[in-house]
Amino acid sequence: MKRYTKAWLDEVLVSLFMEAGASREVSETTSRILIEGDLLGHHTHGIKLANGYLRDLKSGHASGDHTAMTSKEISSIATLVDGHYILGPYLVQKALERSAAAARESGIGIVSIKRSHHIACLASYLQPFVEQGLMPIIMTSDPAVKSVAPFGGLSPVYTPNPIAMGIPSRVQPIMMDVSMSTVTNGSVGKAHAEKKKMAHPVILTNTGVASDDPADFFSDPQGSILPLGGQEFGHKGFAMGLMVEALTSALGGFGRKDEPSGWGASVTVMVIDPALFAGTDAFLDETDHLVNACLSASPVDQQHPVRMPGQAGLSRREEYLDQGIPLPNDVVAELQKAIDDSSLKNAK
Amino acid sequence: MKRYTKAWLDEVLVSLFMEAGASREVSETTSRILIEGDLLGHHTHGIKLANGYLRDLKSGHASGDHTAMTSKEISSIATLVDGHYILGPYLVQKALERSAAAARESGIGIVSIKRSHHIACLASYLQPFVEQGLMPIIMTSDPAVKSVAPFGGLSPVYTPNPIAMGIPSRVQPIMMDVSMSTVTNGSVGKAHAEKKKMAHPVILTNTGVASDDPADFFSDPQGSILPLGGQEFGHKGFAMGLMVEALTSALGGFGRKDEPSGWGASVTVMVIDPALFAGTDAFLDETDHLVNACLSASPVDQQHPVRMPGQAGLSRREEYLDQGIPLPNDVVAELQKAIDDSSLKNAK
Repeated sequence: MKRYTKAWLDEVLVSLFMEAGASREVSETTSRILIEGDLLGHHTHGIKLANGYLRDLKSGHASGDHTAMTSKEISSIATLVDGHYILGPYLVQKALERSAAAARESGIGIVSIKRSHHIACLASYLQPFVEQGLMPIIMTSDPAVKSVAPFGGLSPVYTPNPIAMGIPSRVQPIMMDVSMSTVTNGSVGKAHAEKKKMAHPVILTNTGVASDDPADFFSDPQGSILPLGGQEFGHKGFAMGLMVEALTSALGGFGRKDEPSGWGASVTVMVIDPALFAGTDAFLDETDHLVNACLSASPVDQQHPVRMPGQAGLSRREEYLDQGIPLPNDVVAELQKAIDDSSLKNAK
Repeated sequence: MKRYTKAWLDEVLVSLFMEAGASREVSETTSRILIEGDLLGHHTHGIKLANGYLRDLKSGHASGDHTAMTSKEISSIATLVDGHYILGPYLVQKALERSAAAARESGIGIVSIKRSHHIACLASYLQPFVEQGLMPIIMTSDPAVKSVAPFGGLSPVYTPNPIAMGIPSRVQPIMMDVSMSTVTNGSVGKAHAEKKKMAHPVILTNTGVASDDPADFFSDPQGSILPLGGQEFGHKGFAMGLMVEALTSALGGFGRKDEPSGWGASVTVMVIDPALFAGTDAFLDETDHLVNACLSASPVDQQHPVRMPGQAGLSRREEYLDQGIPLPNDVVAELQKAIDDSSLKNAK
């Protein structure tokens, strides 16, 4: 697999976004967040998305104009943002920065964003805030998509609704990014395109049978993705999915009732500053203790010691920054398509 | 099963707590929250707990003196409370009230409580706040107990770490209360005491095999409870469990590193006021839409339509308030023991 430097990818992506009409601010943040996805190994939610973002910028569904963002300042620590479908990475980054500033003043900050365009990989945003000793939290739902059914039901109603969070620790930071469904829409689509089975029976057919065949999701009537907890404990994943719906679309006042279409997201971010609660040392002493206890737990399989959330991604990131980022063929093909549609075609 | 009125149970419990030295404030709140557990059908986390609370009040491990609570005001919207092992219901109720006041002013309020005594059933606190149009969130971990192993590990490190949340809707409120493990410590203990199997293989034996036998949890070395997501997707439940650890014990600066013993809890509550974000109507329009979409989903089993989190509890609650609360034998026996140890023995 050919490896690409971060600097080269960033130059290409920023050029592409700017040529498609995005401002430098939006282009640079979006490029950085997409590359970060690949650096952490989440190739389905990295550079591969650029082509679709460019398509939406050109069609006008996505905006690259950061001045279009409007905000309602609820208080010094809470803001409601109308994203006007600006590329999500710009909106989420700004929301996290605003929340971080509030957290440093008051302990916590919260920003809810309605009408964001797609926000890429949630894990990609966390590290810079964790390195400042903060706890960033990101939640999102996509009101234009129905893929997960309520527990006990067949009809898909909502989305996988991931929660991501960064937790500082001196031993190693914890960076989690997990959906409240068994698997993501993306993984079902990927398996279907590649005519592969899912690793587990995570699809509920339209007659209520668990299946590992992604074709059972794309049936008519549509199947659904089982909530986290599956057929036994899916009431828990269902509840958590509703929590994310309420904290994103409902809080922003724009969601499924408005029947939006195309790439979009409702997002709520919070940042908490532990320094203002019990203090940095007491906080880190506790997270260090927790991380050490987990890492030193006897493993189920001697060949596979316990890993903390984010651990594999962070070590991959270090290697990729040093050795270059190995991009899978499908990612390279998407990037090449984007380049071929631009003035870079002749330059490169 | 004999039914008891809320009024009679409340009179008895308040008398018992006050005789054991608790102030009227602590006694009344604790009584109300315990009874609420039974009203919602959570008999393991209701009145049954009173006897243990009384034991700890008498031994001095629990405090019934509400004036012992100390607070650090971080800002107008964030507070760190040292609970000094006051009975948890009092502390959590106060934390929610303080957070609610902050939320009405600023959008969100947060209170983290270290060194709380046991906090009973999380769902029991939600309804009054939801009825005010607020979203209360409660998270808790118990730093004195290790029952859940990190995903991929055998050694139990942390606790089921539940998250509870209330979400207003005109159709019906959503009241969720779910642990980030497959099952709770209580359900494993109950099955073990009754020499029953678990409904699903939720125990991981000390050699790493999934088992439905609670005896495999109480082995030496100890087994563990599988995280939410089980053996396939337990990395998600593990991540969410760590989130709760960080937001409770780490934020409060008191936790596993301090090796506490006896009944206790680290708790963080947040309250969000949707009225200050997109407004009450836009919020309720969205949650109504969501609830209606879930309730009208085709059911897997025609005999069992989709139910929202909290729906069964709320309808049970209404019936019990009207007809009296039917208490299981084990609850009555515990309550009787408490009465027999008090001056009420002769009065009743």
